[in-house]
Amino acid sequence: MGTAMEKQALTLVKVGGAVVEDPASLAGLLSGFAALPGLKVLVHGGGRAATRVSEALGIESKMVNGRRVTDEKTLEVVTMVYGGLVNKRIVASLQAQGVNALGLTGADLGYMLSDKRLVGEVDYGWVGDVRSVDVSVLADLISRGVVPVLAPLTYDGAGHLLNTNADTIASEAAKALAACFDVTLVYCFEKKGVLEDASDEESVIPLITRESYGSLVSSGVVSGGMLPKLDNAFAALSAGVSEVRITRSDALGAGAGTSVRL
Amino acid sequence: MGTAMEKQALTLVKVGGAVVEDPASLAGLLSGFAALPGLKVLVHGGGRAATRVSEALGIESKMVNGRRVTDEKTLEVVTMVYGGLVNKRIVASLQAQGVNALGLTGADLGYMLSDKRLVGEVDYGWVGDVRSVDVSVLADLISRGVVPVLAPLTYDGAGHLLNTNADTIASEAAKALAACFDVTLVYCFEKKGVLEDASDEESVIPLITRESYGSLVSSGVVSGGMLPKLDNAFAALSAGVSEVRITRSDALGAGAGTSVRL
Repeated sequence: MGTAMEKQALTLVKVGGAVVEDPASLAGLLSGFAALPGLKVLVHGGGRAATRVSEALGIESKMVNGRRVTDEKTLEVVTMVYGGLVNKRIVASLQAQGVNALGLTGADLGYMLSDKRLVGEVDYGWVGDVRSVDVSVLADLISRGVVPVLAPLTYDGAGHLLNTNADTIASEAAKALAACFDVTLVYCFEKKGVLEDASDEESVIPLITRESYGSLVSSGVVSGGMLPKLDNAFAALSAGVSEVRITRSDALGAGAGTSVRL
Repeated sequence: MGTAMEKQALTLVKVGGAVVEDPASLAGLLSGFAALPGLKVLVHGGGRAATRVSEALGIESKMVNGRRVTDEKTLEVVTMVYGGLVNKRIVASLQAQGVNALGLTGADLGYMLSDKRLVGEVDYGWVGDVRSVDVSVLADLISRGVVPVLAPLTYDGAGHLLNTNADTIASEAAKALAACFDVTLVYCFEKKGVLEDASDEESVIPLITRESYGSLVSSGVVSGGMLPKLDNAFAALSAGVSEVRITRSDALGAGAGTSVRL
């Protein structure tokens, strides 16, 4: 039934720092990712590993409003840990599973430009807010069988890397890629999905639409940290992403977790 | 006068750890590299920065016969420092100068495979001897305007990165690329070239051929650390590299330094 113009399906998986730094969880995530059919992209965080290295180097991790302040030394550490240690280990592991992985920061091929966050009440330091994604760079690699592995580092266009949240990298890349592909954005999460009953891991809500979201919020089923996650999911859907899924890192296959659609 | 089969010229520059870790020297090298016309590749080391980070992390740098022993912890450090900090800083700086740089370890796109060195009298740990270079990966990137920036890390094909000397990365990449390009391999060095008189920085020998090399060695003009450098240069030439140049990092232009040809 497809037409010549039908977009190819692409799965973009975002995995956070907690999974990345636990070898068994990471191995499970990567074998699930390797088994995903079709075109794909992986975005990773790496938060606590950076904190550990910073501590060992005697650099104080300064947090304001729950966000890390990225001073010069901290930028060095996240460049080492996110761009080097975490990214390259994932690339090596995926290559061993037959996935033609390529690690990228925003500076590589200049694919993701950002602006250093303006100093307001808080100076977050070397933190970047995404300005633009060069989707042709990513689409060209992907269409030639390459699987980009995106580190949470962007580039200011003037010689500096900037620290950018991995969730943001994932949603910005997914929105940009939606111009070329039929994109499913998968957020790996510690639970099996969005739960109807927070105490029952099996009470996964299979589908949330904008319509059902309203009643889930007003009834209090969805609250706290899930609110920004779902708001971001709907923002990605509004920007052209076909589906957002929230699932556990050991269950990436189609149908697992909570599907979010308009 | 060129034929359709004539190979395009490509310059592969290798820069060592001493230049890499001195901001002013590195900036000079990178602006010289950015100004080089035509196709190009950069290979970097990063030795002392890794030692500094290892020390800060309380990891002892174990050296045997002048070579670093790469235990598990040291491999983590070199992956961070070479693959992350040094590589990504160079990429960001080159991008700012209009060079479409892409940082690669051997695991990225699986371009350089190596074998973990067998344990003989010494166990060097996670050190890789190059097994193969997938020249099609590099040639394809280069022919599309990408400038690969190669970190001194290779890949064992089974999920592990390995530590490999940057000189070796440079010569192996140059030899492989010689199948597709007319390759000049440039080694950056602290002197202006191979000197006739070690105490006179201006006494650069402009050309060394295999014939003149013999008499330079027998007369004692070339000795010590220059011998393995020149032996490696001739090995690269024998394997198809057109020219090897030994020059100072602030003088990359054609004609500078010592040219080595068969």
